Amino acid sequence: MNQGKSKVIVQKYGGTSVGTVERIKHVAHRIATYKEKAEGIVVVVSAMGKETDRLLALSRETNASPDPREQDMLLASGEQVSSALLAMALAERGIKARSYLSFQLPIITNNRHTAALIKEINVERLLRSFQQGEVAVVAGFQGITAEGEITTLGRGGSDTTAVALAAALNADFCEIYTDVDGVYTCDPQVYKKARKLSKISYESMMELAGLGAKVLHNRCVELARKYNVKILVRSSFNYEEGTWVCGEDEEMEGELISGVTFSRGETKISVMGVPDKPGIASRIFIPLADMGINVDMIIQNIGRQNAADVTFTVPDDDLDRALQAVKKVAEEVGAEGVHYDQNIAKVSIVGGGMRSNPGVASRMFQALAAAGINIMMISTSEIKISCVIDARYTELAVRVLHDAFGLHKS
Amino acid sequence: MNQGKSKVIVQKYGGTSVGTVERIKHVAHRIATYKEKAEGIVVVVSAMGKETDRLLALSRETNASPDPREQDMLLASGEQVSSALLAMALAERGIKARSYLSFQLPIITNNRHTAALIKEINVERLLRSFQQGEVAVVAGFQGITAEGEITTLGRGGSDTTAVALAAALNADFCEIYTDVDGVYTCDPQVYKKARKLSKISYESMMELAGLGAKVLHNRCVELARKYNVKILVRSSFNYEEGTWVCGEDEEMEGELISGVTFSRGETKISVMGVPDKPGIASRIFIPLADMGINVDMIIQNIGRQNAADVTFTVPDDDLDRALQAVKKVAEEVGAEGVHYDQNIAKVSIVGGGMRSNPGVASRMFQALAAAGINIMMISTSEIKISCVIDARYTELAVRVLHDAFGLHKS
Repeated sequence: MNQGKSKVIVQKYGGTSVGTVERIKHVAHRIATYKEKAEGIVVVVSAMGKETDRLLALSRETNASPDPREQDMLLASGEQVSSALLAMALAERGIKARSYLSFQLPIITNNRHTAALIKEINVERLLRSFQQGEVAVVAGFQGITAEGEITTLGRGGSDTTAVALAAALNADFCEIYTDVDGVYTCDPQVYKKARKLSKISYESMMELAGLGAKVLHNRCVELARKYNVKILVRSSFNYEEGTWVCGEDEEMEGELISGVTFSRGETKISVMGVPDKPGIASRIFIPLADMGINVDMIIQNIGRQNAADVTFTVPDDDLDRALQAVKKVAEEVGAEGVHYDQNIAKVSIVGGGMRSNPGVASRMFQALAAAGINIMMISTSEIKISCVIDARYTELAVRVLHDAFGLHKS
Repeated sequence: MNQGKSKVIVQKYGGTSVGTVERIKHVAHRIATYKEKAEGIVVVVSAMGKETDRLLALSRETNASPDPREQDMLLASGEQVSSALLAMALAERGIKARSYLSFQLPIITNNRHTAALIKEINVERLLRSFQQGEVAVVAGFQGITAEGEITTLGRGGSDTTAVALAAALNADFCEIYTDVDGVYTCDPQVYKKARKLSKISYESMMELAGLGAKVLHNRCVELARKYNVKILVRSSFNYEEGTWVCGEDEEMEGELISGVTFSRGETKISVMGVPDKPGIASRIFIPLADMGINVDMIIQNIGRQNAADVTFTVPDDDLDRALQAVKKVAEEVGAEGVHYDQNIAKVSIVGGGMRSNPGVASRMFQALAAAGINIMMISTSEIKISCVIDARYTELAVRVLHDAFGLHKS
């Protein structure tokens, strides 16, 4: 995909990649190697290393619940620093460069401070920079409202800036530089046979991100899918090719499963002996939804005499609040009791190929059974199967599934 | 001057005053005490403590001669942080506040990066904040060009922002908070009889600043004089009244001398035996002016047979360059030689009252002579007399002059 001269490319460097002046110089060096390959380069940068954390700490110290407008004003300074420094580092290498803040383009967002959505991008000044042979360095993570207020985009914000700019510029592709060198079939720290994928579809990437893979934030992948922006995830610390995140195409047909992933941050709550009447489930889940608690997997076993056991998972952070609400409902509807179990893990396989391969689920269950791992809950989507198991078997399950689907082989 | 309810006041807090979150909270507390006294408050802040130095160090590390545009982009982040934090600290005390960056008002400057001049200020948003009962916190030291580029105002920039805002708002007065509690008759560390002035004229303040007093930068005093903005210089660490810097009025007539000051950073250069022909002086001083070297005092003694000794002072930092240029000229014009002396100091008395009191100069010379201090050079302006003396006698000269003009008495 990256052959010959490209028209426009967008690169995004995360906080670790620009964490020190030395690393910023290294990034400038890397950009230099691209200068001949593209007619226009836009570089989006995050704040240096732990700068955003430092600013957040100052904010917390100053005011326990700061005005989101002022918080955005504060945080936006981080990318302003790194983008100016990168422009200086490029100039030092003899590469013309110019940094831009959101208000200077502008990148217009709505006015939802700390989690703003991009509405419109004007790329005229970027095109002018290209004409003048300048690399355009854009401060990531931030925008400006129509009224001239500084906003920030929330988590994954700089990735979102990069993909949105790539879409607005109709860029050939968008490189996201991070501290890992691509998307793996499973966590290499859990199983050394983990293999870096050369490609993954937007859909599979989103499932993986939703399941806790921290390579890309879902929001930027969604945006990339919407505007068909090809993303290349790679490390700024080496020159490995990385992983392409792009639309499914013929070449990918053969790929059954992209990866195995797991998460441990959830708790299983069971409401036992719920009278089996219509509307009971909503009595349990509406209060949780109202509290903003994200209920993940739900199963209902109808067993003894018109009574059901309802089991579901919630994030550990929300456990106390969830239990309180659930116990109240359980009492009101005359359920027998509420149990919970924190020693669980969710193991998932993800892949676009399972759509046309009906045997995937059974192969997963067999593999776990053969390893003596009991499945407590199951949930499936078109391109994902998740099983809740005893947390003790997490790593074993990942290895067993990785082998069962032959993921070490390309 | 500060009695009853004011219409609009501007306060400026320097880097030391907002150096930590604790100090920012302290500033918020101080502003709270003003809330009832004024209908509109604008607070201008510098960057926190050593933040500008930290950013400059990052810049130097990245590029030995950075693009001034990028330098401004970088440095402007410092005041963005402190203004957002101060707005948060005010909100935490229940005081409505809103921070503003230059582009949001705007504060329009010319495009001379790192030393921009303010051309125009739009105060509409500030007035809107007043109407909504908000304290307006403005990031100092920076502006924006008509083309949307961020600029900085150079040394004394935040003071200049404050005075310019006070002028644009027709504010009742402008308080400049710093780490000293006013303007003194002489350096209290040199002479314990030093007395804080309750008032000083713009003109005398400028002479003092030009002579090395670091309380206020000349540029902001000039601006204040131009727009007749009353400045109150005071400390943010106590509630002492400070010193008013304002136009001369009747009350000040009696004040003969405002203060005694000294500087040690200059070297005396003498070109001996210069043939006394027209145009010789320009042969010496034009090359120095072309090099940007600020020649201060100049005397010329015509003595032996059509030859003169030309003596002048230059800043120590420029000595090497100045000597090189002067030696070249001395050879060309057939002078006898070039000497220099670094062990000199300049002691000055400053005060508007000397205009109408012709005996001031002689009283100064007498006092120095009585203490056995030889005067090497003299220069006078309407409101200042400076003498170059042997550096060893600097402190003695300051004390002697302070006594001679009775400056310890109000």
